[in-house]
Amino acid sequence: MFVNVFTSSPAPCHVSRISESAVRRLSLYLRSLQEAHDAGVVTLSSDELARRGGTTSAQVRKDLSLFGSFGKRGLGYSVEELRAELRDILGLSQPWRVALVGAGKIGAALFSYEDFRRKGFIIRSVYDADPAKVGSCWGDLTVRSDGELEDGLRADRTDLVIVAVPAAAAQRVLERVACAGVRGVLNFAPVRLRAPEWMTVRSVDMSVELEALSYALSQQDRQRMAG
Amino acid sequence: MFVNVFTSSPAPCHVSRISESAVRRLSLYLRSLQEAHDAGVVTLSSDELARRGGTTSAQVRKDLSLFGSFGKRGLGYSVEELRAELRDILGLSQPWRVALVGAGKIGAALFSYEDFRRKGFIIRSVYDADPAKVGSCWGDLTVRSDGELEDGLRADRTDLVIVAVPAAAAQRVLERVACAGVRGVLNFAPVRLRAPEWMTVRSVDMSVELEALSYALSQQDRQRMAG
Repeated sequence: MFVNVFTSSPAPCHVSRISESAVRRLSLYLRSLQEAHDAGVVTLSSDELARRGGTTSAQVRKDLSLFGSFGKRGLGYSVEELRAELRDILGLSQPWRVALVGAGKIGAALFSYEDFRRKGFIIRSVYDADPAKVGSCWGDLTVRSDGELEDGLRADRTDLVIVAVPAAAAQRVLERVACAGVRGVLNFAPVRLRAPEWMTVRSVDMSVELEALSYALSQQDRQRMAG
Repeated sequence: MFVNVFTSSPAPCHVSRISESAVRRLSLYLRSLQEAHDAGVVTLSSDELARRGGTTSAQVRKDLSLFGSFGKRGLGYSVEELRAELRDILGLSQPWRVALVGAGKIGAALFSYEDFRRKGFIIRSVYDADPAKVGSCWGDLTVRSDGELEDGLRADRTDLVIVAVPAAAAQRVLERVACAGVRGVLNFAPVRLRAPEWMTVRSVDMSVELEALSYALSQQDRQRMAG
């Protein structure tokens, strides 16, 4: 029943026909459009979108063409229209019901992360296994006991769960979240999780990024010593 | 002088001949070896490493062959030896001098993130621009003023900087960190940073991951409605 799911694995075909990297670029285009909108810019060329997104204008046109026909030749894209379209494509035109499992320091940082709120990911419940944390107030929420997890997620019709528990506890949390029928998980525990096929799991793995930096720097050191 | 650098862009050839995704898999193999080591396991097959890392045994053998000859046919890999080799390849056999810029909630979470410490990324200094935070104690460190950044990074011979400041402040911080000659940055601000060529920048972009989840879920909803 449980199959391997991982950050870098492509989404299953029945969910999406476009690649994860294209979805990632759409997010970056949307961020650029939001910045342009905030700065009062009305139209953007594909060159400008490409520059801001770190890609080519051909890639921008190709990515956007997957979803329809946007922009006018020679006139560029309407910031307002394309922003609304991308928000809609990315599922951001509706608010998502989000729960947070893990009321530690990472949980606290995510709870107050402005960029999540701004995009409509509103954390509506917080769970923790530690009796010392249960009952404490986070904004206008009260931290709930881990024992209420499945019932609470179902009652709240939770769409997404952010998992911010220690590595050793994360798989069990994912299984309980799956039992409650939640379809999406954003995992911050430094561990690979197995999830049922119908569930989408994304992992933010901070140590892996830091190790990639460490690798790049030590390669430079080796070349310096060899040169 | 400043060129575009981005999470998904390949490392420059002179830094590394292997892909970012291969480096990422090495991190995951190392994690599996560490778990095996902690569980008292002495040897692991490439099948088992593949299973734990979510890839194929052929991929495991190919990745490892880039760095030399490991393991014995039919006997698998010595957990202890391969763990030491991978730690060395990833530059983890030496401690890195890390500074944290931004003493907000994300900074606090990263400061106490066990997985960083365990891997030898020791935060030795914390900087913030907020006078209310400067002078406060974080573990055995005192939060320093942002004004001391360049001098402090140079004096401490800092290898890596973790940037955990608001998006609007991040580019300026990166430029100051570059002036101090720091070669690596791990960026948590939700913004694309421009960095000099000799610098390695990795970004952990939590909103992009959450938007990828949102996309996957809204695609499911559309197919359900269409079906």
